[in-house]
Amino acid sequence: MKVNGTPYRTIWSDPQGEVVAIIDQTRLPHEFVIAHLRSLDDAARAIRTMQVRGAPLIGATAAFGVMLGMNKDASDTGLEYACTVLAATRPTAINLHWALERMRTRLAPLPARARAAEARREAAVICEEDVATNRMLGNHGLKLVRDISEKKSGPVNLLTHCNAGWLATVDWGTALAPVFFAHDAGISVHVWVDETRPRNQGALTAWELAVQGVPHTVIVDNAGGHLMQQGKVDLVIVGTDRTTGNGDVVNKIGTYLKALAARDNKVPFYVAAPSSSIDWPADDGSQISIEKRDDAEVSEVRGRSASGSMGSVRIYPETCPVANPAFDVTPARLVTALITERGMCPASKEGLAGLFPEKA
Amino acid sequence: MKVNGTPYRTIWSDPQGEVVAIIDQTRLPHEFVIAHLRSLDDAARAIRTMQVRGAPLIGATAAFGVMLGMNKDASDTGLEYACTVLAATRPTAINLHWALERMRTRLAPLPARARAAEARREAAVICEEDVATNRMLGNHGLKLVRDISEKKSGPVNLLTHCNAGWLATVDWGTALAPVFFAHDAGISVHVWVDETRPRNQGALTAWELAVQGVPHTVIVDNAGGHLMQQGKVDLVIVGTDRTTGNGDVVNKIGTYLKALAARDNKVPFYVAAPSSSIDWPADDGSQISIEKRDDAEVSEVRGRSASGSMGSVRIYPETCPVANPAFDVTPARLVTALITERGMCPASKEGLAGLFPEKA
Repeated sequence: MKVNGTPYRTIWSDPQGEVVAIIDQTRLPHEFVIAHLRSLDDAARAIRTMQVRGAPLIGATAAFGVMLGMNKDASDTGLEYACTVLAATRPTAINLHWALERMRTRLAPLPARARAAEARREAAVICEEDVATNRMLGNHGLKLVRDISEKKSGPVNLLTHCNAGWLATVDWGTALAPVFFAHDAGISVHVWVDETRPRNQGALTAWELAVQGVPHTVIVDNAGGHLMQQGKVDLVIVGTDRTTGNGDVVNKIGTYLKALAARDNKVPFYVAAPSSSIDWPADDGSQISIEKRDDAEVSEVRGRSASGSMGSVRIYPETCPVANPAFDVTPARLVTALITERGMCPASKEGLAGLFPEKA
Repeated sequence: MKVNGTPYRTIWSDPQGEVVAIIDQTRLPHEFVIAHLRSLDDAARAIRTMQVRGAPLIGATAAFGVMLGMNKDASDTGLEYACTVLAATRPTAINLHWALERMRTRLAPLPARARAAEARREAAVICEEDVATNRMLGNHGLKLVRDISEKKSGPVNLLTHCNAGWLATVDWGTALAPVFFAHDAGISVHVWVDETRPRNQGALTAWELAVQGVPHTVIVDNAGGHLMQQGKVDLVIVGTDRTTGNGDVVNKIGTYLKALAARDNKVPFYVAAPSSSIDWPADDGSQISIEKRDDAEVSEVRGRSASGSMGSVRIYPETCPVANPAFDVTPARLVTALITERGMCPASKEGLAGLFPEKA
């Protein structure tokens, strides 16, 4: 996607595979800053502190993290160490484990001296595949948006939760790819952007929609149900950190509430789920470990102060008890369809088997 | 309720009726500050800027606002002016209009010279009635909490949205009165406190629970559904800004989402609805005007900075479009029961008629 006219991806490596560049997402929407990762530890920290986030981008960053690890120690021990360190960063997004498993499988059979170069190549392939996948999600989702636009006057109103846009992937996004494709195709769209407490990833979504010129409105997470009741939402599209074999969707905390409201108001609820985010062996969402993050994410809010500097304020006193589960499970029964790179399917074992028979 | 051992109400007048004291709720939870209202304009500003908030307390403040207005101009014009200014402060909470109508009815037949003293008396009566009503809500709700406590081990886990506690009323609270009564009766309770964006009234709820020693945990508004799925919520109790004749509940934005989650997880969902908050003539919630508040409530967050001073940070850039509806409508079908001062009843025209035949 272009930022101020310059095309960017969210992650890229120098040709030597020594430095990985990322957009530091903790600085957005106020500052657009490129950060550089030079070591395995840099990559692990970037994932853990959410300088990069979003299931697909976490996978790509992990792949580059293995590459950075191989630059320093390409032994069997070094490979295992890199995978272990990176796997421990965030428990819920499955793309992390998918990418690490893929790197391990590719690198383990090779002699140590060949691993760094192969890691560079494979990480780049993962990135290209992600971009290609998201283009396919965008094309499939575009049809949905177009169908709605042809049946109504005025813009198609989408609602999305968290950020499953360009910034959550290498390019285009998952849930937002259909939005960008529709906008580029001249279809009038407007996006209700859930702010997505506690981390306010809605600010990222609003930023990338603004950069691309897509009309949008930020709302608090509490507001989506009311807007659906008022007929102001035509469809919901969200991403997923992990979708289990039966179609249960593990995604950012609060997704479940929007799925309930969509069902109650007969608003279609779609999940953009590239196959890399599907946990095929998991029978249902109840088995998935839900990350509990730091209380400070809830108690403190970061932003720009009146003086223009970045800073934090504490909403709740130090003594105030806080809990911060990061994801929830939307049961498959509430999902209208999954949008995958191979097309749309019901959120069910049978639905997924129809599109991915080799995984069933 | 006691703060640091001293009993307080949330609003009171000096014996002469010249100065009304309030707890400035925009300063909580960080600072406990008493503010003084000396004029009609002071009272209107206190309601509009949410120095006082919560449907019952807005009603009490409006009554005192009329008193302050009568001190300056007790003519028929002065009375109408006071009621008009106060009615325009906030559109959704019905107690505001209920209290103003009551004051107007009481004062209009009197000669101007008698109005100020009568206004003082009537405002005090409204306060006393509110306290008595909330005690009754507390007693009725206590039975609910006790029944659950007798069927499980460990604390009774309640979830509440916004603040319908002591601070939303003159004393005791509506939704939280049962919590305080249960705690005082030695029943182990724990409250999940929705932070309630955008104004974070959850901070008020957490503060008053902490002051009374009631165990609680603040969560983002996105988390309640997940906690219900995990079996960590035994019941939900919320307040209401206006409940229509059929039992539809107009309450803080996001209440509807929690009601949906409660229904989906078979968690009982109760609404503490004193009769002063019931809009008898309104057939259903779709007729009620939903207040749209300032974008800045969403874009900026106030809190304590690292230096200890109070300040705001901007989460979303000035250019970011924002919408801020303040209330939503929870359909009666999602409400397990209304808790009124006369006991519990189904959220329906018939249910309300059973308890309040004179209104039906």
